[in-house]
Amino acid sequence: MSDNKLAIDRPTLESLLLKRFFYAPSFGIYGGVAGLYDFGPTGTALQQNLISMWRQHFVIEEDMLEVDCSIMTPAEVLKTSGHVEKFADWMCKDTKNGEIFRADHLVEAVLEARLEGDALARKAAGEQVAEAAKPADDKKAKKNKKKGGPVVATKLDDAVAEELRSILAQIDNYDGQGLGELIKRFDIRNPTTGNEVTAPVEFNLMFESSIGPTGQLKGYLRPETAQGQFLNFSRLLEFNNQKMPFASAMVGRSFRNEISPRSGLLRVREFTMAEIEHFVDPQDKIHPRFDEVKDIKVRLLPGTVQLEGKTEPITITIGEAVAQGIIDNKTLGYFVGRIYLFLMAIGINHDLLRFRQHLQNEMAHYACDCWDAEIKTSYGWIECVGCADRSAYDLTVHANKTKEKMCVRETLPEPLVYDKLVCETNKKVFGPTLKKAAKPVQTYLETLPEAELAKINEQLLADGLAKITLSGTIADGEHAITKDMVEISKKTFTEHVREYTPNVIEPSFGIGRILYSLIEHSFSVRADDEQRAVLSFKPAVAPFKCLILPLSNHASFEKPLRDIARRLRSNGVPARVDDAASASIGRRYARNDELGTPFAITVDFQTAQDQTIIVLVKDLVSGDTTWDDVLGKYELVDTAAGADEE
Amino acid sequence: MSDNKLAIDRPTLESLLLKRFFYAPSFGIYGGVAGLYDFGPTGTALQQNLISMWRQHFVIEEDMLEVDCSIMTPAEVLKTSGHVEKFADWMCKDTKNGEIFRADHLVEAVLEARLEGDALARKAAGEQVAEAAKPADDKKAKKNKKKGGPVVATKLDDAVAEELRSILAQIDNYDGQGLGELIKRFDIRNPTTGNEVTAPVEFNLMFESSIGPTGQLKGYLRPETAQGQFLNFSRLLEFNNQKMPFASAMVGRSFRNEISPRSGLLRVREFTMAEIEHFVDPQDKIHPRFDEVKDIKVRLLPGTVQLEGKTEPITITIGEAVAQGIIDNKTLGYFVGRIYLFLMAIGINHDLLRFRQHLQNEMAHYACDCWDAEIKTSYGWIECVGCADRSAYDLTVHANKTKEKMCVRETLPEPLVYDKLVCETNKKVFGPTLKKAAKPVQTYLETLPEAELAKINEQLLADGLAKITLSGTIADGEHAITKDMVEISKKTFTEHVREYTPNVIEPSFGIGRILYSLIEHSFSVRADDEQRAVLSFKPAVAPFKCLILPLSNHASFEKPLRDIARRLRSNGVPARVDDAASASIGRRYARNDELGTPFAITVDFQTAQDQTIIVLVKDLVSGDTTWDDVLGKYELVDTAAGADEE
Repeated sequence: MSDNKLAIDRPTLESLLLKRFFYAPSFGIYGGVAGLYDFGPTGTALQQNLISMWRQHFVIEEDMLEVDCSIMTPAEVLKTSGHVEKFADWMCKDTKNGEIFRADHLVEAVLEARLEGDALARKAAGEQVAEAAKPADDKKAKKNKKKGGPVVATKLDDAVAEELRSILAQIDNYDGQGLGELIKRFDIRNPTTGNEVTAPVEFNLMFESSIGPTGQLKGYLRPETAQGQFLNFSRLLEFNNQKMPFASAMVGRSFRNEISPRSGLLRVREFTMAEIEHFVDPQDKIHPRFDEVKDIKVRLLPGTVQLEGKTEPITITIGEAVAQGIIDNKTLGYFVGRIYLFLMAIGINHDLLRFRQHLQNEMAHYACDCWDAEIKTSYGWIECVGCADRSAYDLTVHANKTKEKMCVRETLPEPLVYDKLVCETNKKVFGPTLKKAAKPVQTYLETLPEAELAKINEQLLADGLAKITLSGTIADGEHAITKDMVEISKKTFTEHVREYTPNVIEPSFGIGRILYSLIEHSFSVRADDEQRAVLSFKPAVAPFKCLILPLSNHASFEKPLRDIARRLRSNGVPARVDDAASASIGRRYARNDELGTPFAITVDFQTAQDQTIIVLVKDLVSGDTTWDDVLGKYELVDTAAGADEE
Repeated sequence: MSDNKLAIDRPTLESLLLKRFFYAPSFGIYGGVAGLYDFGPTGTALQQNLISMWRQHFVIEEDMLEVDCSIMTPAEVLKTSGHVEKFADWMCKDTKNGEIFRADHLVEAVLEARLEGDALARKAAGEQVAEAAKPADDKKAKKNKKKGGPVVATKLDDAVAEELRSILAQIDNYDGQGLGELIKRFDIRNPTTGNEVTAPVEFNLMFESSIGPTGQLKGYLRPETAQGQFLNFSRLLEFNNQKMPFASAMVGRSFRNEISPRSGLLRVREFTMAEIEHFVDPQDKIHPRFDEVKDIKVRLLPGTVQLEGKTEPITITIGEAVAQGIIDNKTLGYFVGRIYLFLMAIGINHDLLRFRQHLQNEMAHYACDCWDAEIKTSYGWIECVGCADRSAYDLTVHANKTKEKMCVRETLPEPLVYDKLVCETNKKVFGPTLKKAAKPVQTYLETLPEAELAKINEQLLADGLAKITLSGTIADGEHAITKDMVEISKKTFTEHVREYTPNVIEPSFGIGRILYSLIEHSFSVRADDEQRAVLSFKPAVAPFKCLILPLSNHASFEKPLRDIARRLRSNGVPARVDDAASASIGRRYARNDELGTPFAITVDFQTAQDQTIIVLVKDLVSGDTTWDDVLGKYELVDTAAGADEE
């Protein structure tokens, strides 16, 4: 599947990320723990800049209600939300040595290795190989050997190869039983030992703990920030002066006890999310600002296309996609547009972004529709933002469980007037006749659907008597109702208020995944020098905005250097002095290329006195001025002589 | 102890905080969980603004290396750091109903209630009561009744009352045994049931979990962000081009499974911290920027003063305090100054801030000195920032455990030349004579202290033979060394590099506590109207910067209102439209007083066209212009007519 992966020199990138401390395995000196990473100064600044831009783009510009809720969550809440029962992955074990695999990853790796072997065999036989079936290069083959077993040049039947490709295209659509069948049918084993593996069993992905000194209150670390937002719905609606629609938002840490963390930052056990819960009238999922995004062209991969085993997206405007029903409604479409704009603003490559619709079985238990923003990286297409329609699922289950109302009451512009058949009891006869059954029978009659009530009325009119059967009450069994006990008739009702449970559209951002994808898209190696890796970040995103270098290593430069750095920093511009006497100017430029620092100031004595440069850099970073403006205003000085010193 | 508490109308404040959703108990609709709080839109914005200012004041201005590390921490790390054994509070149980108390809180509450009773009795007898011993008002007495038992007017002996006050002044200095003795001596019982309580036992405050699908890797949620910073020390030193001193920093969530969470945000189970670890040469704890803070006057309460049972701080400049040895060194002094400046910048009241030195027993297990910035609130003096000298404790224990070097290697300006007695073996005789004991004996001789080696040399010179005894090796027991086997002589050494483990000065900020204290200091009730509560935040701190109101409720104002709001927001200024037709202008001002919104724009048709106002508000919020500048430039319009509408 090599055309599905971005071709970059990942070993060089990974060594850069470690060397410049973007991130590193947590607890490294203790041997590390899979799926846990620490961000260093560069990674932390990059992450903070992405979060700031996210806040500006979504929370501030769209006037969302940002909240910050507890991570530790009592079990009862997550039982209600369905996570205790359903937030699980399928796991299988090597039957002999007990090694644990995530079932879908195992199947995927083994089948991919077989297709690679097939391609190798066909290539050796001189066959033409389709792009999608080209064998991986040596390095990749070596990697797959570890994951999916040895890549052996073995030709498969054309039909088998075709089927494997089709299975892989929809691997996310298999549940435990389906995966178990694939394992049996294709004799999938532990690639390292060759031992058989058990049938897949469910493994819940939440970290468990207990709250308080008695140890009796079970808690979980939240697997998403969403639940805290749902639980506060009524407070937020009140804060918003009862106005709909509105959105809440949260940025924070969530936890998933992954079976087999892998792919660096892409599948981890602890991660920062930014989630929006947009509450909307289910009868009217329009969005007031839809027109602002309707002409944006996006690449969509709808479920229908995937089920045909295809992976080629369609390019279409958001307005068209909603009009054609590809995207279900305008609110969902609006957020697809806003997500697109955000990813473009931080520097994601337009051509390496697509929106893929979830297949039915792949959807989270709470979702009724979901579009993922997927970004192409060297690991393949990575889900970086999910945009799910959670319908009224969460508010409904929490309201049912707690008996707290979680709904909107809206004064109707015109009162709603309608007739309805109702049952009134004749107290003198009803109570004395039915005795202790009177109350349950009355409740039964008053809550009966109108059509049922009409049937009883017909019987009473025809026979003077109707029989009803209660269950689940203190007076279960059959009861006779006679004509003198009740009066069933049409009454006119007037309603001034409409009550409804909002639906929720949830754009959910994996900050670590976006950050990693952005790094890959910003990475290149200078053509003139294989060793010189460069990260090209936009100024707003870059961890450090400005490098400050002395014109020479003379000691007298030290003070002006520190002064400029201090003035920049007190203006909110993170600046880094590089005056290491041991490194040439060229070497220092090179290492700041690796940090992705967009601007550099080489300081002579005049610079040190000059306030202009501080303002200039500040404006360049904030976007209040551009580099072209600067070039128009000032004379360009050739500093290449310095850079060539190396 | 009423003079130790800030006098505010807390019930009114608490109702405001809930109504305007600064924060609320988490999982409220499920009954809540003690010690867990959710921040609403106002609280979240306030918290974010405090964090942004903290980042600017410390990380950016001081060029600190910010990191972001994992919360989930394997047990081994926290065993090494001492937290598994020592991070605990003392807990006792009601012997009959099993109710659990934090021992020091129980003793404190009961003794305080007795002193209140004493004061009441003295007042009733017409005695003069010292300020510190004045009885609480009715509301407080009622509260204490719940915490420390009924306040009964019972006069205590003068000596007993004096002793209780002295115990309370240093309550933090008692360990479990000490608390147990107090409980016995003063017959302290469960205030509600009157039952006896058990002797205090330790309860570890960390939340436990397990990592990965096998359940075999035990983990804890970090109780502080510090450990992640220590574990990355070597990477950070390298990132800083091996230059010392430097500081790392982290903002993030930490967890403590408190025995009895209380006092709202002040003692919670999950909280946001901002911690700095400043790594410094233990032989030279100066700070390059010390002079910038040396003239700042602070109020200090040193340990010596507290041990005399006194609570009156001394006012002194930081320079003087360091010179007199009250504050141990310049780096500690520098951070006391920077903490002071930060707290002033966000709006803490100067007169309600003091720095208190920890008493010996109260210090965390890793600290050798500690100064807390304490802020006076209605709950008393609250520790909001700890500034501890952790010496080389953490780096040393982790290095010993992991065998990874965690130290600084510094090229000496002048090489260090010295003579030292060393032992060299004569290979031809040494090995063949000692056989398998040769290696351990050689190691023994090479690592022997110089004085011991000199003794052996004397024996060899005198007798031609010396005996040594090994233990813990593969050749334990006595071995004879003869003159021909070794040569012991003085050699000259030259060292170019000095190697040392840095000490750590740790300023550690409890963001929630600072936030709550700031709210109390910003709170007032308008003199003309008891019901009209006001929060007066500085513009940089305020959750919403600008309120936008229409001149009238005419529908034609809606669009210009939204336009202005949108333009402000796209300039990064959080603005809030309040056009609720049901509320008068006065009512709307009042409710935005409760949100602490510093600026308001009342929109007429001309405003709607005008770009000036956007720039003006943006500059006011960023501090680039002041309200006085604005008054000098523009004519003041009387809008009081509108405000009086109510």
